[in-house]
Amino acid sequence: MTQAPSRTALLDDPQLRPFLPLLFIAWSDGDLEPAEFAAFEDHIKEMPWLRPAARIALQAWLDPKQPPSHKEMDTLFETIGKVASNLDVDHQRDLVELGMSFAPMGTPSDDIRRALVQLEEAICGSLGPAEPLLRRVRAGRELGQEVTASGVSVPPPFDVATMRAVLDGDQAKVRDEVRRFLDDPEKRAYGLPVKDYRAKVAGWLEALADAGLGTRAYPGVTSEEKDLNAFVATFETLAMGDLSLLVRFGVQFGLFGGSIFFLGTDAQRREHLARIARLELPGCFAMSEVGHGSDVQSLETEAHWDAATRTFVIHTPSESSRKDWVGGAAQHARMATVFANLTVGSEKQGIHAFLVPIRDAEGELLPNVRAGDSGHKMGLNGVDNGRLWFDHVRVPESAMLGRFARMTEDGRYESPIDNPKRRFFTMLGTLVGGRVSVASASVTAAKVGLAIAVRYATARRQFGSDDGVEMPLLAYPTHQRRLLPKLATTYVLSFAVAGLRRRFASDQRASLEASARGDRTIPDTRETEAFAAALKALASWHGVETVEQCRQACGGQGYLSVNRLPELRADVDVFTTFEGDNTVLLQLVAKSLLAGFKKRFESNALAGVVRQVMSKAHTAVTEKNVIVVRRTDSEHLRDRGFHLAALRYREERLLETVSGRLRKRLAAKKDPQEAMLDVQEHLVALALAHADRIALSWFDEGATSCQDDALRGWLDKLGALHALTLLRRDATFYIQEGYFDSHKESAMREETERLMKELTPAAVALVDAFGIPDATLAAPIAFMDPAHPRWP
Amino acid sequence: MTQAPSRTALLDDPQLRPFLPLLFIAWSDGDLEPAEFAAFEDHIKEMPWLRPAARIALQAWLDPKQPPSHKEMDTLFETIGKVASNLDVDHQRDLVELGMSFAPMGTPSDDIRRALVQLEEAICGSLGPAEPLLRRVRAGRELGQEVTASGVSVPPPFDVATMRAVLDGDQAKVRDEVRRFLDDPEKRAYGLPVKDYRAKVAGWLEALADAGLGTRAYPGVTSEEKDLNAFVATFETLAMGDLSLLVRFGVQFGLFGGSIFFLGTDAQRREHLARIARLELPGCFAMSEVGHGSDVQSLETEAHWDAATRTFVIHTPSESSRKDWVGGAAQHARMATVFANLTVGSEKQGIHAFLVPIRDAEGELLPNVRAGDSGHKMGLNGVDNGRLWFDHVRVPESAMLGRFARMTEDGRYESPIDNPKRRFFTMLGTLVGGRVSVASASVTAAKVGLAIAVRYATARRQFGSDDGVEMPLLAYPTHQRRLLPKLATTYVLSFAVAGLRRRFASDQRASLEASARGDRTIPDTRETEAFAAALKALASWHGVETVEQCRQACGGQGYLSVNRLPELRADVDVFTTFEGDNTVLLQLVAKSLLAGFKKRFESNALAGVVRQVMSKAHTAVTEKNVIVVRRTDSEHLRDRGFHLAALRYREERLLETVSGRLRKRLAAKKDPQEAMLDVQEHLVALALAHADRIALSWFDEGATSCQDDALRGWLDKLGALHALTLLRRDATFYIQEGYFDSHKESAMREETERLMKELTPAAVALVDAFGIPDATLAAPIAFMDPAHPRWP
Repeated sequence: MTQAPSRTALLDDPQLRPFLPLLFIAWSDGDLEPAEFAAFEDHIKEMPWLRPAARIALQAWLDPKQPPSHKEMDTLFETIGKVASNLDVDHQRDLVELGMSFAPMGTPSDDIRRALVQLEEAICGSLGPAEPLLRRVRAGRELGQEVTASGVSVPPPFDVATMRAVLDGDQAKVRDEVRRFLDDPEKRAYGLPVKDYRAKVAGWLEALADAGLGTRAYPGVTSEEKDLNAFVATFETLAMGDLSLLVRFGVQFGLFGGSIFFLGTDAQRREHLARIARLELPGCFAMSEVGHGSDVQSLETEAHWDAATRTFVIHTPSESSRKDWVGGAAQHARMATVFANLTVGSEKQGIHAFLVPIRDAEGELLPNVRAGDSGHKMGLNGVDNGRLWFDHVRVPESAMLGRFARMTEDGRYESPIDNPKRRFFTMLGTLVGGRVSVASASVTAAKVGLAIAVRYATARRQFGSDDGVEMPLLAYPTHQRRLLPKLATTYVLSFAVAGLRRRFASDQRASLEASARGDRTIPDTRETEAFAAALKALASWHGVETVEQCRQACGGQGYLSVNRLPELRADVDVFTTFEGDNTVLLQLVAKSLLAGFKKRFESNALAGVVRQVMSKAHTAVTEKNVIVVRRTDSEHLRDRGFHLAALRYREERLLETVSGRLRKRLAAKKDPQEAMLDVQEHLVALALAHADRIALSWFDEGATSCQDDALRGWLDKLGALHALTLLRRDATFYIQEGYFDSHKESAMREETERLMKELTPAAVALVDAFGIPDATLAAPIAFMDPAHPRWP
Repeated sequence: MTQAPSRTALLDDPQLRPFLPLLFIAWSDGDLEPAEFAAFEDHIKEMPWLRPAARIALQAWLDPKQPPSHKEMDTLFETIGKVASNLDVDHQRDLVELGMSFAPMGTPSDDIRRALVQLEEAICGSLGPAEPLLRRVRAGRELGQEVTASGVSVPPPFDVATMRAVLDGDQAKVRDEVRRFLDDPEKRAYGLPVKDYRAKVAGWLEALADAGLGTRAYPGVTSEEKDLNAFVATFETLAMGDLSLLVRFGVQFGLFGGSIFFLGTDAQRREHLARIARLELPGCFAMSEVGHGSDVQSLETEAHWDAATRTFVIHTPSESSRKDWVGGAAQHARMATVFANLTVGSEKQGIHAFLVPIRDAEGELLPNVRAGDSGHKMGLNGVDNGRLWFDHVRVPESAMLGRFARMTEDGRYESPIDNPKRRFFTMLGTLVGGRVSVASASVTAAKVGLAIAVRYATARRQFGSDDGVEMPLLAYPTHQRRLLPKLATTYVLSFAVAGLRRRFASDQRASLEASARGDRTIPDTRETEAFAAALKALASWHGVETVEQCRQACGGQGYLSVNRLPELRADVDVFTTFEGDNTVLLQLVAKSLLAGFKKRFESNALAGVVRQVMSKAHTAVTEKNVIVVRRTDSEHLRDRGFHLAALRYREERLLETVSGRLRKRLAAKKDPQEAMLDVQEHLVALALAHADRIALSWFDEGATSCQDDALRGWLDKLGALHALTLLRRDATFYIQEGYFDSHKESAMREETERLMKELTPAAVALVDAFGIPDATLAAPIAFMDPAHPRWP
C-alpha cells in the first residue's frame, strides 16, 4: 500500500523522470533476471545525489517481486510517448538521450546522464538500441500484451468467462459436456489410412452414444428435453472436434433417426428411436442420387405398392438413380431411410420415405441390395460415404414413414395433404434441421480456425526492422485485415445461428405438439426454412473462407496437418455443397421473398401500391437525406441503426428491382423459367442481402440483450466492423443509389481501420471466449516451439 | 450440291414453313433412330397436297445420312425464334400451334394441321411438349452444342489446335513432350499412404531424369539450350500432372541444382550439375528456418571459417534455426545447399550458400547431421519435406558456392560485391526462377481445374423446369459467373507468365554470359525480380481461388478424389505461401515501386515536379474528360486501350498517394518503419495494382501479335471480361476518383454479362486449347456416368 504513491511520484519527480524510459524497457522485455535487478540496485547506491525519497521510489519500481501492473505500465508508456513524440528519430533511438529529454530544463544534468549511461550498459547492453525495443514493446502493447517479471502475457480486456457465457447462451451445460468429451488428445486424427480413420471415428461415435448424447435428438421420445435446442447445440459444439465424427453423429441421430422422428408415426418412433439413439441400429439417409444432387424433386428411385402382398417394392431403375454420398452406406449402416417415388396402382403419389434394411446384424448386405464406396474424398474420410442400388427389394407396409401418408385397409393411398408437390415439400420442410445444423457447425469451424490463427499471430514474430527485432504478426495491419473482419463476422453469425436454432426448435415443437393433439393442420414453417437456407449458405461460405484465410495466415505452419488447419479446411469445404448447394439454396430463398412480395403487393392492389410509395418516400426522407448521405462521424458510422437500415434498404431495393424486371418479362409473355434465368444473378444477390440483414438483426437481438456494459461495448465494435465490411463491399451499389457518397465510403474505410486497431488487443480474449478445447487445437509444440527463446 | 438450295428453299416455301419447328426438334434431340425417320417419310407420302419440290426438300432434310450442319440449324433456329417470340407462352409450348403460326395468313391450313398432328405423334410423342424441348435445345445451343444424328456434340467455334499453338508459344515442342509423359493413368495417385505416395513420386522423378528433362535446367552446361525458357516451360507444363512430382522436380533441378548453376563457380558446375541432372546426386535446398519463413535475412544458421584447416563449420545454434519444410530432406536428399551466416575471423560477411553432404550413398545420415520429417501436410504428401540440424559439421573450402565469394590463399574473404546486404540480395536475385516457376505453375493449376469444371458444366444437367427437362449447369448465369471470369483471367495470366518467363530467361542469359566473359559487373535484375514477386502473388491467389470455385462448381463430384480437384486444391494452396508469402512479396514489390518513384522524383527535383504536374494534367485531359467518364458503348467498354489506361491510372494514383502519405510521416520525423506500417495496406493495394497492369500489358503484347483474326477476336473477348471484372471490383476507387461514374459501372456490368453469353459456347474449346492430357483429368466414369442416358 505504501508503494503506490511512491511509484506514482516517479512520474513527477524531476530527479526520477529521466529514468522512465529505462525502467519501461527493463520491465517490458520481461526476461530480465533478479540478478540484473540487483546490479541495477548497486548502481543506484552509487548515485549519492539522489534524494532518499527518490531512491526509495526507484527501488520500489525495481522490486522483482512487485512487477508493475498493466495500468502502471500504461501510465509509464503514455508519459514516455508524450515526450518522445517531440523528439526526432535519432534521439528516440538513444535511450540516454530519450531519458535526458525528461529532465526539466535547467536542472544539473551531468550526474543524471552519467547514471543513465551506466544503467543502460548494465541493463540494456545486450538488448540493442532503445528505439526498436520501444517499437517492439509498442507492438506488443497494441496486441494487449502485458509485461511481467515472468514474461509477456496477454491480459484479457474483458472477462472471458462471462463472454463465453454470453456466446453459449441457454445451452451452456450441453456445450460444456461436449467440450469435456472433445478435450482429449485421443480424439484427434489425421493422415491415417481410411480404414483406420473410419474405425477410430466409429469408436468415438459409440462413446457419444454411450454418453447418451444421441437421445437429445428425440425430445419426448428418448429424452426429457422439450425441444431440439439441446441437440442442435450439441451438434454445433461437436464441430470443435473432428468433423468426420460430427457428420456421422448428424447422419445417425439427425438425418436417419430424424427422418423417423419427423416423418414417422408414434408406433414407428417407439419401435426404432431408442435403439437408434443408443446406436444399436446404425442407419443412413438415402436421399441424394448421383444424377440428382440438390434437385431432390427429380429423384428416380421407385416404390411400387403391391396390393396383393401389402408390400412396397423399392427399385433403382437406372444408373443415374443410384443413391450416392450416403454417409454410413459403405460400411456401417444396417438400415436406410430411402426416398422413392411412390406408385399405387397407376397413380404416382410423389416422393415418400421408406425404412429399408440393408445389412444384417453381422454387417452382411441383404439380398438384392448392392452397396459401393463413394471413394476417397477431399476430407471427411472418417465417414463411410457410399452408394446403394435396390433391385426390387420388398419391404412391409410398415416401412413407409406414416406421418403424412398411409395405405388404407382397402389398399388405397391416403394423406392429410392432397397436393403431391405440397406433400413433398412439407416432408422436406420437417428435415430443415440438417441445414440449421450445418449453418451452426460452419460458424464453429470458423471459430476453431480463428482460435488457432489469432493465437499464432500474437506469438509468432517475423520481420520488423534491420536491427533484428521482430514483430508479432498481428501487429501488421495486413494481418489484422486478414483475421479481424472474419472474427467480427464469426461473432455476428454466432448470434445469428442461435436465433435460427431457437426459431427452428420452436417451430418443430409447435408442429409436434399439434401432431400429438391429433391436429392435422400442417403448420407453415416456410419462413424458418428460408432463414435456414439463407444462413446455411452465408455461414458455410464464411466458414470455408475463414479457415482458408487462417491457413494462409499461419504460413507454412498452417500447411502442416499437426496444426489442425489442413483437415479443418478440407472437411469444411463440402459444407457449401451438402444439405443443398449454396447457389441453389439462395435461389429458393429469393423465390420465397418474391412470393412474399407478390402477396404484399396483390393482397390489396391499390393499398399495396400506396404502401409501397409511402415506404419509398419514407426511405427517401429518413435515410437518403443529404445529411445522412454525407455523415461521417464515428458515432454514426458505428451506429447499428445505420447498419441495419442500410442492409434493409439494399434488400428492399433488390427485391423491388428484381420483381420489376420479372414483371416486365412476364408482361412480354416471356417463358417464366427463362425470365427467372435472366435475373438469376440478381436473385442470388437478393438472397444474400436478405441473409446479411437477418444475420445482423439477430446479432442485434443478442447483443442488445447482453446485460454487461463492457461486453456489450466489445460486441458493438465487432458488429460495427462486420457491418462496415459488408457496406464497403457493396459500396458501388450504395453510391449508385445515392444512399451514401464516396466521401462517406472513405470515412467508413478509416473507421474500419480504427475498429481493427481497437479490437487487436482483445483478439486473443475474443477467440478464448469461444471455449475451443485445447486438445482439439493445434499441437502446441509444433506451433509455438517453446524452445525458441524469442517466442513467449 | 443439289441439296443446299432445296433445303434453304424450305425456309421460304409457304407449304413447308410450318414443318420448321418439328424438323428442328427432330434433329435437335439427336437420338432419333433411322426407323423413326422412315416413319416420318411414310407420313410425308400421305400428304398428296405437297408440291413435288416441297416434298423433295422435306425428304432432303430428313436424310439420316445428311444431318443438317451447324449453320443450317442456326438458320432454322433463328427463323423459328423470330416467329415464336411473337406468340404467347401457351402457343410456344404446343408444337402444332407453333408450326401453324408459320403458315402464311390465308393459306388453306387444315391439311397442314392434320399433317403436323400426325408427325408430332410419330416423332415427338415420347419427347413431351415442345416448349421445354425448345428451351433445352436453346440452352444447349447457348453452350455451343451441335445436334447431329449421332448425338449432341460441341463444335469448337475456332480451331483449337491453332489456339493451343498460340498459348504454347515458343515452347510447343517442350510442352508436348511433357504432355506425353503425363498422359498415362499410372501417373495419378491419391489417397495413398505417405510412404507409398513418396515412393511413387520418386519413381516418376527418376523417369523424368532418365528422359533427360533435368538437363534443361543448366543451359550451356548439361544441355544445348540457350537459356532457361525450356526449363521453365517444362515446369509449367508438369503442373498439369501430380504437383508432388512438380515440386520434387523443382527442388532437385531448379532449387538445388539451380543454386550451383547460379551461385557456383565453373568448377563447381562441372563437378556437380551433370550428376544432379541425372538424379545421381539427389539434393535439397535448405534456406527456410522454422523461426524465419519469408524473412530469409534473419536466418540464424552459422558458418565459421576455420583458417587452420581451411574448412567451414556449419552449425544450428538454436531450435528456431533448424532448417524446415526442406523438400527432399526427410528421406531422399544426399546433399543440401545450406544458407548460413558466414563469419571469418571476427567479421560477419552475411548469408552464403554451402554444399553440405547429409547422407551417404546408402541413404544413411552423415555424422553430426540430424534430420526429421516435417510431417503430414495439407497436400503435396508425395514430397518428403524435412528438417535439418547441423552440429558443427565441417565442409571443405570448396563447399562454399563461389560465384560471389571466395577465400583467398591467405585466408581472407573476398567478394566482387562489397556491401554484404547487396551481396545477399544479389545472390537471392539469381534464385528468382523459383518465383517465376511458381507463378507459371499456378496458372497451369487453374487451367486443370477449369478443364474439369467447364466440361462437367456442359455435361451435367440439373433442374430446369417442372416437366423434367434438365439444363446443363453452364446454361445458368450463376454458373457462368463462377467459371467464365476465372477462365478469362487464366488466359490473361497465361500470356503474362510467358512474358515473365522470357524476361527472366533473357536476364539470366545476359548475366551468365557476362560472368563467362569475366565481366564482374553485377547486372541489375531488380525489375524482373519485382515482376516475378508481383506475378507470383497474383497467379498463386488466382490458382487457389479458381480451383476452389471449380471444386464447388462440381458439387459432390468435385469433392471426390477420383475427380482430381481435391488433391489439386490441397496441393496448390501452399503456392500462396512458399517461395515467399504473397503478402510479404507484395510489400517488396511496393517498396521497389516507391524507390523508382523517388528516383524519378529526385533525379531532377524541379523537372520532376513539372513532369508530375504535366502527367497529371495529361491524365485529366485525356482520361477524365466528361465524355470518357460517361462513355458506355460496347466498343469503348471492350477497348483494351481503355482497360490499360484505367489500370495504369490506378497504379499511378496509388503510388502518388502512398508516397505522399509516407513523405508526410517522414517529414514529421516519424520512425520510417512505423511509417511503412501505417500505410501497409496501401502498399499491398499498390503492388496488386501494379501486378494487374503488368499482366494485362503482357497479355496485350501476346494477343496483339496473334496473326489469326478469329482467334484474336476470342482473345479480345477474354481480355475484356478479365479487365471489366477488375475494374468493377475496384469501382469504388474509380468512382471516388471521378475516373468513371456509377452509370458507367452499370454499363460495365451489362457488358460483362454480354461477354459471358458470347464466351459460353466457346468455353469447352477454350479449355481444350490448354491441352491438358486426358489421363491427368478427372476419371471420366465417375464424372460423366455414360450409363446415364441423359448425359451426352
